[in-house]
Amino acid sequence: MNNFFHPSGTYTDHYQLTMSQAYFSRSVGEQHVVFDYFFRKLPFNGGYAIFAGLENLLDILEHIQFNEDDIAFLRQWGFDSRFTDYLKNFRFKGSIYSSLEGDIVFPTRPVLRVEGSIIETQIIETLLLNILNFQTLIATKASRMLHVAGQRSLIDFSMRRAQGGAAYHASRAAIIGGFDATSNVKSGMDFNIPVSGTMGHSFVQSFDDELSAFRQFAQVWPQNSILLVDTYNSLESGLPNAIKIAKEMESTGNRLKGIRLDSGDLADLSKKSRKMLDVAGLPYVNIFVSNQLDEFSIQTLLEQKAPIDGFGVGTNLGTGQPDAALDGVYKLAYAFDKPRIKISENTAKTTLPGKKQVHRILDSEDGSYLADIITLNEENDISEMHYPLYNGKNTHFHKCRSVVLLHPVMKDGKRINEPKSVTEIAQFSKERLHQLPESYKRLVNPQTYRVGLSSCLLKERNHQIKNLKEEHSSRL
Amino acid sequence: MNNFFHPSGTYTDHYQLTMSQAYFSRSVGEQHVVFDYFFRKLPFNGGYAIFAGLENLLDILEHIQFNEDDIAFLRQWGFDSRFTDYLKNFRFKGSIYSSLEGDIVFPTRPVLRVEGSIIETQIIETLLLNILNFQTLIATKASRMLHVAGQRSLIDFSMRRAQGGAAYHASRAAIIGGFDATSNVKSGMDFNIPVSGTMGHSFVQSFDDELSAFRQFAQVWPQNSILLVDTYNSLESGLPNAIKIAKEMESTGNRLKGIRLDSGDLADLSKKSRKMLDVAGLPYVNIFVSNQLDEFSIQTLLEQKAPIDGFGVGTNLGTGQPDAALDGVYKLAYAFDKPRIKISENTAKTTLPGKKQVHRILDSEDGSYLADIITLNEENDISEMHYPLYNGKNTHFHKCRSVVLLHPVMKDGKRINEPKSVTEIAQFSKERLHQLPESYKRLVNPQTYRVGLSSCLLKERNHQIKNLKEEHSSRL
Repeated sequence: MNNFFHPSGTYTDHYQLTMSQAYFSRSVGEQHVVFDYFFRKLPFNGGYAIFAGLENLLDILEHIQFNEDDIAFLRQWGFDSRFTDYLKNFRFKGSIYSSLEGDIVFPTRPVLRVEGSIIETQIIETLLLNILNFQTLIATKASRMLHVAGQRSLIDFSMRRAQGGAAYHASRAAIIGGFDATSNVKSGMDFNIPVSGTMGHSFVQSFDDELSAFRQFAQVWPQNSILLVDTYNSLESGLPNAIKIAKEMESTGNRLKGIRLDSGDLADLSKKSRKMLDVAGLPYVNIFVSNQLDEFSIQTLLEQKAPIDGFGVGTNLGTGQPDAALDGVYKLAYAFDKPRIKISENTAKTTLPGKKQVHRILDSEDGSYLADIITLNEENDISEMHYPLYNGKNTHFHKCRSVVLLHPVMKDGKRINEPKSVTEIAQFSKERLHQLPESYKRLVNPQTYRVGLSSCLLKERNHQIKNLKEEHSSRL
Repeated sequence: MNNFFHPSGTYTDHYQLTMSQAYFSRSVGEQHVVFDYFFRKLPFNGGYAIFAGLENLLDILEHIQFNEDDIAFLRQWGFDSRFTDYLKNFRFKGSIYSSLEGDIVFPTRPVLRVEGSIIETQIIETLLLNILNFQTLIATKASRMLHVAGQRSLIDFSMRRAQGGAAYHASRAAIIGGFDATSNVKSGMDFNIPVSGTMGHSFVQSFDDELSAFRQFAQVWPQNSILLVDTYNSLESGLPNAIKIAKEMESTGNRLKGIRLDSGDLADLSKKSRKMLDVAGLPYVNIFVSNQLDEFSIQTLLEQKAPIDGFGVGTNLGTGQPDAALDGVYKLAYAFDKPRIKISENTAKTTLPGKKQVHRILDSEDGSYLADIITLNEENDISEMHYPLYNGKNTHFHKCRSVVLLHPVMKDGKRINEPKSVTEIAQFSKERLHQLPESYKRLVNPQTYRVGLSSCLLKERNHQIKNLKEEHSSRL
């Protein structure tokens, strides 16, 4: 068996190691550098993202190393023995300043900052992007469904359609974004999150008739039966049989927990099912639905007053459709005692130089979020915010409160705090989301949250661009 | 650390276990059943799919079990001790008949058949779908890129944008679909596939100038340098510097392997770069490109005669965009001594009853693929093929050759053959793809490959539908 989640240093792109050997050979491998993790575009054309994956990243970083097989493989692929000897003792000893997991995050501003030697920060780039990009995507998708589902329950059914090993962290991220439970037993166990499920069509099919199937199941799970009613015909067979079973259960002092509709028009079927259940004196039997749901279909069902108590969501949650990837990047901001910048013909892709911090401006009265302002790390003048893509545009903040967003979470390769549970992170995320005004939460065409630069950072950025242009023109 | 790929029985949906406890409690858990794995819709609106993931599935099935922690967790979630005692000794002892990994597969026909006890076949459903759906999606995506890239090299760069743990098998599936190498070192090592890479922008940025960065890299990797030329300006800075380095390398008897373009108009830049390299007497320096590529952008670049030698493909490959999921399902075909069927108001979703085989009809002259015909397992009359969705439509095959497609690969929980390497599977896949006529390989609007039912299977299907309808009407 191959264990992907072994914290192996080979969990990286080949070029991280070829670059590292070059640094090592030139004796600059221990030089101090700073990388920023950020993304450029919000997923799902939404108004915000939920940051997720941090705890898993810190777990791996505390343990990452190269074992003997790794070393042998690298030797075989042409890495020299001095460098691979160095890798034998490699551990990540860097420091990380990060947004808290579950926080609301926005494009262009650093979500996380890594400081360390150029070799160690380069080697971890790929796994950092791999973990944070995916979980942030899925937590954000889940949050959009929470926004429309409100108090109704949301269950993650994505495991069978998730992208292979992605299922494991998809279930974790779904809970951070606001889901109540997962069908994924392994993730439930490892992340201590509620597991939940109903029954499949094959169960009903394997009995000679639907009523027997329901009866057998209810006898074995008297406290926890959700009967799948659409194997033959939801309204003509499934519902009448479920009602019979519910009545039998009442006679032994139990209650049928719910029914699940998995095909057909879920609005129409849920209304008719609710009526049949109520007429039968079973108002407590919940109606769960599934079948290719996403935030838009949930919204439509509820707009049409479908009396649904819970949604099981699979493919669109677990794969983060229609985006399927967050475009998070990891860019060098400081190296070898100098701030660094990458300029681009596409101005939006020019990076921000130097070690930075992010401050969130809060409304002085209700504490709601107004803007995120990126500053140099050592300054804190957040009275004015600039938008480099819109020359000359700026915003003044007076008498606003503010909070710092990047916190030290790892120092010299060790976590600073105890790991947080997924439930704690999910709770924190809900509190933060509560502070975000509704206009940023619209599924379609939300308001654009303001992110900008402090005066000092703008000055530093312009200075670096000027320097680089002068150097280049003098060399050509 | 949590190891997702531990072959744990908890790598499943919660309902598989609640159903299993119900079977167990009713003493029917050992009843023999048959499940089919198949999909209903080809990914990417394409004309075929490449089946992948089988070897990984067989690996897991040979080792799957419930350890003490798993049992404790299930007890905590309400499973009874008689059932969890049974799970302590659980091993998969079933048998599998499957398409060969790498084969060309089509919708509606069984890709794989599982036979075993109802508990074991149910418990493995989720992991089977999770593994096969994803790898088949990615191998198919890779195959589409191979189709347009021809002999040019294709490198998997997807790790940083892949969906977390999905990266591991995405790289494997990419090779099966026709990619030449991956940047993913861990997958390269575990699956014995070539690893490859170039350099990142941060390498160039971390030096005071681009020329020094290139020179340092080339000195450390004299046989294997691909210089990334777009950090500052591809044509004005990157190319002239790369040419200088190539000349320096020549003076020490080495050759620059290539340059990589990662932004801008890749058609225009590659043409200008080729000209600059040729004028400098460097016709051997290859041009690699990357940046949000997919099969369509590769096709367009080559139509415009871009002189590109290799493509690095990331997000769209590793996430299987724009589909992101294959809709593969696992349906009960036989249980408790009877063929089983699930009927649906959507006729396309009615399943095929009984234990089945699939035969491929080959052109008698050139052996090219004409159709796949699904039969009952015990018959082999493939002279006539029916299409249940098009009542009365049929095709006659005379004097055609045929091959059987489902082969025994696991018996009583043990593999029948030695595991195949990824390279072997990729080679086999290329041979099979060669037999598929070109009209099925068009990226857009390909011909629809014919899949149908034998006369006997059609009869059995109609018989089962009639039975079920009679039973239901007599009960209502």
